[in-house]
Amino acid sequence: MVDLVSTGISGLDAMLYGGIPKDNQVIVAGGPGAGKTLMAFEFLYRNAKAGNTSLFFSLEEDPKRIISNAKSAFPEFKDIDKIIESKKLIVTGSDITSIALKEDPAFEFGRLIADIEEEIEGSNATRAVLDSSTALELIVRDPTAYRRSMWALVANFRRLGVTSMLTSEIHSPDRSRLAFRPEHFIFDGMLVLYQGGEEARRVQSLEVIKMRGYKHSFVTAPYDITPKGFRVLSPESMNR
Amino acid sequence: MVDLVSTGISGLDAMLYGGIPKDNQVIVAGGPGAGKTLMAFEFLYRNAKAGNTSLFFSLEEDPKRIISNAKSAFPEFKDIDKIIESKKLIVTGSDITSIALKEDPAFEFGRLIADIEEEIEGSNATRAVLDSSTALELIVRDPTAYRRSMWALVANFRRLGVTSMLTSEIHSPDRSRLAFRPEHFIFDGMLVLYQGGEEARRVQSLEVIKMRGYKHSFVTAPYDITPKGFRVLSPESMNR
Amino acid sequence: MVDLVSTGISGLDAMLYGGIPKDNQVIVAGGPGAGKTLMAFEFLYRNAKAGNTSLFFSLEEDPKRIISNAKSAFPEFKDIDKIIESKKLIVTGSDITSIALKEDPAFEFGRLIADIEEEIEGSNATRAVLDSSTALELIVRDPTAYRRSMWALVANFRRLGVTSMLTSEIHSPDRSRLAFRPEHFIFDGMLVLYQGGEEARRVQSLEVIKMRGYKHSFVTAPYDITPKGFRVLSPESMNR
Amino acid sequence: MVDLVSTGISGLDAMLYGGIPKDNQVIVAGGPGAGKTLMAFEFLYRNAKAGNTSLFFSLEEDPKRIISNAKSAFPEFKDIDKIIESKKLIVTGSDITSIALKEDPAFEFGRLIADIEEEIEGSNATRAVLDSSTALELIVRDPTAYRRSMWALVANFRRLGVTSMLTSEIHSPDRSRLAFRPEHFIFDGMLVLYQGGEEARRVQSLEVIKMRGYKHSFVTAPYDITPKGFRVLSPESMNR
Amino acid sequence: MVDLVSTGISGLDAMLYGGIPKDNQVIVAGGPGAGKTLMAFEFLYRNAKAGNTSLFFSLEEDPKRIISNAKSAFPEFKDIDKIIESKKLIVTGSDITSIALKEDPAFEFGRLIADIEEEIEGSNATRAVLDSSTALELIVRDPTAYRRSMWALVANFRRLGVTSMLTSEIHSPDRSRLAFRPEHFIFDGMLVLYQGGEEARRVQSLEVIKMRGYKHSFVTAPYDITPKGFRVLSPESMNR
Amino acid sequence: MVDLVSTGISGLDAMLYGGIPKDNQVIVAGGPGAGKTLMAFEFLYRNAKAGNTSLFFSLEEDPKRIISNAKSAFPEFKDIDKIIESKKLIVTGSDITSIALKEDPAFEFGRLIADIEEEIEGSNATRAVLDSSTALELIVRDPTAYRRSMWALVANFRRLGVTSMLTSEIHSPDRSRLAFRPEHFIFDGMLVLYQGGEEARRVQSLEVIKMRGYKHSFVTAPYDITPKGFRVLSPESMNR
Repeated sequence: MVDLVSTGISGLDAMLYGGIPKDNQVIVAGGPGAGKTLMAFEFLYRNAKAGNTSLFFSLEEDPKRIISNAKSAFPEFKDIDKIIESKKLIVTGSDITSIALKEDPAFEFGRLIADIEEEIEGSNATRAVLDSSTALELIVRDPTAYRRSMWALVANFRRLGVTSMLTSEIHSPDRSRLAFRPEHFIFDGMLVLYQGGEEARRVQSLEVIKMRGYKHSFVTAPYDITPKGFRVLSPESMNR
Repeated sequence: MVDLVSTGISGLDAMLYGGIPKDNQVIVAGGPGAGKTLMAFEFLYRNAKAGNTSLFFSLEEDPKRIISNAKSAFPEFKDIDKIIESKKLIVTGSDITSIALKEDPAFEFGRLIADIEEEIEGSNATRAVLDSSTALELIVRDPTAYRRSMWALVANFRRLGVTSMLTSEIHSPDRSRLAFRPEHFIFDGMLVLYQGGEEARRVQSLEVIKMRGYKHSFVTAPYDITPKGFRVLSPESMNR
Repeated sequence: MVDLVSTGISGLDAMLYGGIPKDNQVIVAGGPGAGKTLMAFEFLYRNAKAGNTSLFFSLEEDPKRIISNAKSAFPEFKDIDKIIESKKLIVTGSDITSIALKEDPAFEFGRLIADIEEEIEGSNATRAVLDSSTALELIVRDPTAYRRSMWALVANFRRLGVTSMLTSEIHSPDRSRLAFRPEHFIFDGMLVLYQGGEEARRVQSLEVIKMRGYKHSFVTAPYDITPKGFRVLSPESMNR
Repeated sequence: MVDLVSTGISGLDAMLYGGIPKDNQVIVAGGPGAGKTLMAFEFLYRNAKAGNTSLFFSLEEDPKRIISNAKSAFPEFKDIDKIIESKKLIVTGSDITSIALKEDPAFEFGRLIADIEEEIEGSNATRAVLDSSTALELIVRDPTAYRRSMWALVANFRRLGVTSMLTSEIHSPDRSRLAFRPEHFIFDGMLVLYQGGEEARRVQSLEVIKMRGYKHSFVTAPYDITPKGFRVLSPESMNR
Repeated sequence: MVDLVSTGISGLDAMLYGGIPKDNQVIVAGGPGAGKTLMAFEFLYRNAKAGNTSLFFSLEEDPKRIISNAKSAFPEFKDIDKIIESKKLIVTGSDITSIALKEDPAFEFGRLIADIEEEIEGSNATRAVLDSSTALELIVRDPTAYRRSMWALVANFRRLGVTSMLTSEIHSPDRSRLAFRPEHFIFDGMLVLYQGGEEARRVQSLEVIKMRGYKHSFVTAPYDITPKGFRVLSPESMNR
Repeated sequence: MVDLVSTGISGLDAMLYGGIPKDNQVIVAGGPGAGKTLMAFEFLYRNAKAGNTSLFFSLEEDPKRIISNAKSAFPEFKDIDKIIESKKLIVTGSDITSIALKEDPAFEFGRLIADIEEEIEGSNATRAVLDSSTALELIVRDPTAYRRSMWALVANFRRLGVTSMLTSEIHSPDRSRLAFRPEHFIFDGMLVLYQGGEEARRVQSLEVIKMRGYKHSFVTAPYDITPKGFRVLSPESMNR
């Protein structure tokens, strides 16, 4: 039997037939404003509320700003501060772009991973978010080194027993222009947030591209971001 | 409750359900002639008229020309000179492309930001415009350094408590060829001005791609530039 | 009130609601055979006939050839020689591609601008044409230096009080493949001559992409090149 | 008469009119989550169950993870552990990206092939899988050297008498954007797993692009991954 | 009155309203097998038959082969040998790709032009063909030097009073993928031979993209290559 | 009268109105699995059966494998071994990618051509196949040197009086994405094997892009590879 981690996100668990297989490392890809960071945040918030320690590691943005953005987007998550105070939800980070100018980026990348690892072990976190992969890519520019670093990251997170989300930027809002990148192949799962629609009204929709170890929906489901969190209108969630 | 800054632009505030969240840094992207600079100017003009000190910082064009272009485009803004005299609207700049030939572009970029910061602090401006991002990109060409510089710019502007617009050039007039750039992910908000339409008549339309911290319209709304300022024909503004 | 310079081109002034704002620097873009050089020539010819001294500066083609091409295309402009003799229309040039091999292209570019400036001042020309931007681009290949040079050119022409056209090559005949280039953003106005049409018959059409300081048509209007000059079939000109 | 190796995969043998010609080396190409690795695994599992020793050689992923992923995807393959214990199915690997940093990649590539060869000979395996070609490409980046290495790999595998699958990443999910790569020409066979469909529901489908030495279907057949293994809904399998 | 040179090609003169303006230098562009070289050959053959000395200068292909290909394609041109013997049609060449390895390509290019010039002057040729521009491009690879060389070539040919055709390779058979190259802007005229048609039958068609100094058809007209020469089915030729 | 070489391939001769003009050098282009090598093999086999000595020169693949693949694909060609024994059909080769690492690729390329030339002269072969052009391209990477080498190859083959086929890889299966390469212009003829069809069933089809010296079909004709050889369903062959 697969051990599933509920995302707690409305409609998404249904698309995943229960949740993300435990210890899976999952890409959340999307354009600007698609809600990648917010979805990753809600994933941790829901888990923290359920009593599981969760770590948000920002690689560029100020952690305080991550929290205030989440509060603005989700006004009904009234207990964010309380949960953070209780240490169930840890929002931290390191401006890793400063590493990019150093001499041995692979070494620095390794040290960053070691720092995150320490944070995870110190806090006994079982869920983690890294925001975003672009920052990692700017540190390790050689394609072989980047690929190796991503494999190492995935292996270390598995070893630590965390189920994670890594946000990833895409350069076109449409599904018809989706182009796969190395990390999409390396990670266990991949969700994409599209901002599509040829008509005068954009429709935001989510697709599960892959989820290793368990079945998932093949439907591209509309979503919106409500004060109470994401709402993914998957047929799987309708039939309930 | 989110603290919203009214743009004062007809129809746009409705698309933003009131305005831009305070301290948000917003990209205004568009092709040549789309009106990026004029929209940014009107944003400041409206705010200056409402009594808030506003700073337009031109990175390439002569500030005098910015003013005369705005006067030509908006003949009904008859008090531009008066408002400028009253120091509520400050239009200044620095030909930053001269920096590009210097030895340490990141350092020079930092000094430019420091100059702008000083201008903002000295004038107590609460709204700012930087026109345009292409000039910044030409100074800092290394992608990692560029990304870091943009993060620094956003952080500094937030710290100063200004709500800003940064104009950004796009290389195709159509929504179907829109391609995201690094700054689109870093900034809090993004508006795009399209010059689309496959038929014999171009239609100018505006889309809010993102606006962190608050809801926004998903409609692409036609706009025109009238003597009285921008007029954005959003369904949200119709229903009023 | 905006001071407008009539182009004298049939139907185009109507699309521009009177003409080009004085001191505006305007791009005329198009593919081979679209008529960029001819349109720029007619712009000067019309102005010269109206008594205004006009300068055509060719950056590659032999000035004599410019004149003979214009005569062939516009057999009804029977007084071209007379107008040239009267010094109202000056067609000159410099094979600037020879500059490209020199050591400091930006310096050479500056000297070229100085030469053109001298020509303009010496002749008291109020209208000028530079043909074409590709020649400039080949001299100054660094993108930052190119952008700076184009800003400098525009500023110098403004200072001299000339209203100008710069011809610019596009690499696809169709509107759906139009891609913007740096000078398109820097110049005050932009006209594009398309050679489109998916059917067996090409249709030549003109679009005003931008015209700073005044309103313009958003229609893409068919045109042809007649013995009496360009004829732009804009709806604005029909309604007269 | 061609000697065919049954893939044991439901519906696929019918598309191949019996199976893969013995000693053919076959590419299995697809995007993330298409099931490339799982299809290659099932190919070996089916053969191992039929009593033929089979070798899975992972070039990046931890072999234990390959096994656990297969168990999760195929819960009805209850005897995976037993078959592995019986040495009929060998899942091993080498993190070959570590080779990429060495001085002579072609030499290292040769040594890797020698290692795999030794594994095959030592175990008397008649079927093999290499997962994935991207790892090989990162070691040998020069296009000529890469092509030579792929030819050498194919020749060595043939000499050893193994029928193999090499997984290969594609960068677009759609058939209309399929672009051929060098190894697609060198290998004897090529299967592609698409994740297509313009509508709101992705359809996974398989196409046999080539299979040297024998006939194959030209239909693109839908497939799904069931607890009992792949199910390819080819018309050829329907008619049975 | 424009002095027109009849091409002698059936239907083409009608598309050109009489022919090519004297001293115009014309590009004939097309894909492999479109008939670029044959059209250029027929242009010279027709002119030679009319008593005008004509020079075909091959830059890559063996001149004997040019002649034998023309004889095969046009079996009704029974007097090719006689006309060549009479020195009215001169087919010569120089394998200029050998120049490419020399030290100063621009100098070598200049010497080649000088050689061709000498041939033209020595023979009093009034029509010339250069086959093909790709060979020139391979000699002078720097884009500025290439552009200058093409301007020089055009100027020299004009000075010599020859009307010429330069064949030019395009990389897609379809009109919708046509992309302009530098020489397309520099030359006086441009004909394109398409091999289009989305259906199961290719249709060859010809378009006059430009012809300086005179009017031309805007129709894309089907053509075929018959034993009696090209037959261009232009509406202009139908109405006669 | 053109001297035609029958290809012996069912339906293809009809598309060529009899066959390939003697001494023509012909490209056979296609994607993986399209049957380029098999078509070239059948061309030689048919000619060998008709008593003409034919040489297949493989530039990468083991000659034995070429033969065994042909036997598998064409089980009705029961006399392949006998014909090979009779020396009417010679299948040989040289792993020319080994040349790529040498110091002077153009020199090595020349030596390779000399080797092939010797084989042709020694055997009095009148038909030849080179498989494939990609191998040549990897030896001579400089575009000018590559173009010269291809011209030299074509010239040498003509001088030897052989009619040849050179196989060439294309990177997209569809006709709408066909892009021409240098050798397509240099060779006398070009056949393309498409694997097109937007529907769920691929259709293999053949187009004659060019055939110097004689007429050819403009239809894209479906084909399949049967035990008795290629069958090209051209309308020209239907009407017989």
